[in-house]
Amino acid sequence: MESEIERIPILRLTEESRNNIEDVVAREFPLTIIINNEELVTLLCSPKDLKYLAIGFLFSEGLLENKDEIKKILVDDQRGVVRVETYEDKALANELIFKRLITSGCGRGASFYSAADIQDQVKIESRIEISTHQVLSLVRDFQHQSQIYRTTGGVHSAALCDTRNILVFSEDIGRHNAIDKIFGECVLKDIPTDERLIITSGRISSEILLKVARRNIPIIVSKSAPTDLGVKLANDLGITLLGFVRGKRINAYANDWRIADDGR
Amino acid sequence: MESEIERIPILRLTEESRNNIEDVVAREFPLTIIINNEELVTLLCSPKDLKYLAIGFLFSEGLLENKDEIKKILVDDQRGVVRVETYEDKALANELIFKRLITSGCGRGASFYSAADIQDQVKIESRIEISTHQVLSLVRDFQHQSQIYRTTGGVHSAALCDTRNILVFSEDIGRHNAIDKIFGECVLKDIPTDERLIITSGRISSEILLKVARRNIPIIVSKSAPTDLGVKLANDLGITLLGFVRGKRINAYANDWRIADDGR
Repeated sequence: MESEIERIPILRLTEESRNNIEDVVAREFPLTIIINNEELVTLLCSPKDLKYLAIGFLFSEGLLENKDEIKKILVDDQRGVVRVETYEDKALANELIFKRLITSGCGRGASFYSAADIQDQVKIESRIEISTHQVLSLVRDFQHQSQIYRTTGGVHSAALCDTRNILVFSEDIGRHNAIDKIFGECVLKDIPTDERLIITSGRISSEILLKVARRNIPIIVSKSAPTDLGVKLANDLGITLLGFVRGKRINAYANDWRIADDGR
Repeated sequence: MESEIERIPILRLTEESRNNIEDVVAREFPLTIIINNEELVTLLCSPKDLKYLAIGFLFSEGLLENKDEIKKILVDDQRGVVRVETYEDKALANELIFKRLITSGCGRGASFYSAADIQDQVKIESRIEISTHQVLSLVRDFQHQSQIYRTTGGVHSAALCDTRNILVFSEDIGRHNAIDKIFGECVLKDIPTDERLIITSGRISSEILLKVARRNIPIIVSKSAPTDLGVKLANDLGITLLGFVRGKRINAYANDWRIADDGR
């Protein structure tokens, strides 16, 4: 597997100076996912954890629902291909794939806007609570782990946590990919996601919210902003949505009852 | 047309306090593009300039190449639908649409990785030059115009400029959409894009680079980072790529010969 970053020579300019220096940029790698010999999609991603990304993507898109469906996963790091075979010859007919991708397009998930899809999503009932102090502490740890971002400024991070610790961490040039990598790892390693939190460096749009809801996660935390649809869905699906978590403050956009008083 | 922002009540938390306040979030709106009665894609976007977005998208994806092909554009703001009719019954057979979106998927543009697509892209020959001072000045103006971002922290901005002024400006929750809105407006208003610059708040990935190359734009400027593929393509296609333009400094990643000495 190649590196996730690349060193390149650049020209650093100010109004007073010009200097040839070396800079570090994030790599962008095309990964093609093939399921039961059908080419499904090519994702642009950071070249790491390709297996997790492929499996996470298939679960997030609803094409797989259970680890036991998976017969074989073949990863070709060099060519950028992950082949997934399932036991049942899943009816991933062209029609179905076509329909999904047509409606999701670049947004990847607009298909969820069909009323049926949202109705299918069960409301999250977890009674877990977390304190303001714990959220701020987790986000500080999260920042410390975001290595590539600090080097290149060009990637997103995501993490699965319990109320005290980061359990799974990932980085990718795409905010969707970073979360899918987490979920792929959870599926393959049997790491439960319910009763846990997701932290993301990226914006919380409706698609991110629904992706998290599918894994039955009760709390999502972002350093960035949510959209109005993200907030509406969080309210409807019983998910605690915390945004703009920076420094010492948190904005609670939905279901703030899971934020316990800090014992004062 | 509804507003691009929404005011919502939130809970602002610190370790010492809890306050009910009002916050502003960016709206997220599903726009469906229908071409010659075929549903093509649903984009998630900011609900403004839907016509420009639809037309820009069709040009960026290579489905339209000339304004004269367009017979009629019908915008339904309420339902979130733009219908485009062309004079010739374009052979947008399912096969073609299927192929494109399958390969682009969420990445929207991975299809460009086919050698044929990149070979089709003509190298940009413009001899335009710009000074460091002019770039920094344009980026300052660009920041000032980024209204919604300053309110919500949740949108991207893009602008078409000459070496002195911002000519067309747009904002959208998606960095691709913001640029497509610019190009759609340019197409419909016959605003030339060659010999001009694009400024974007977002990362410069290969897809953004190719989108800009298709409009024959010689210089792209970003406040954020490029990826390695973005840099490679900029080198290959003769595009000047400036990144991390913040405060008083610029990183020139490719074709820095278009940055003129500031007369010293």
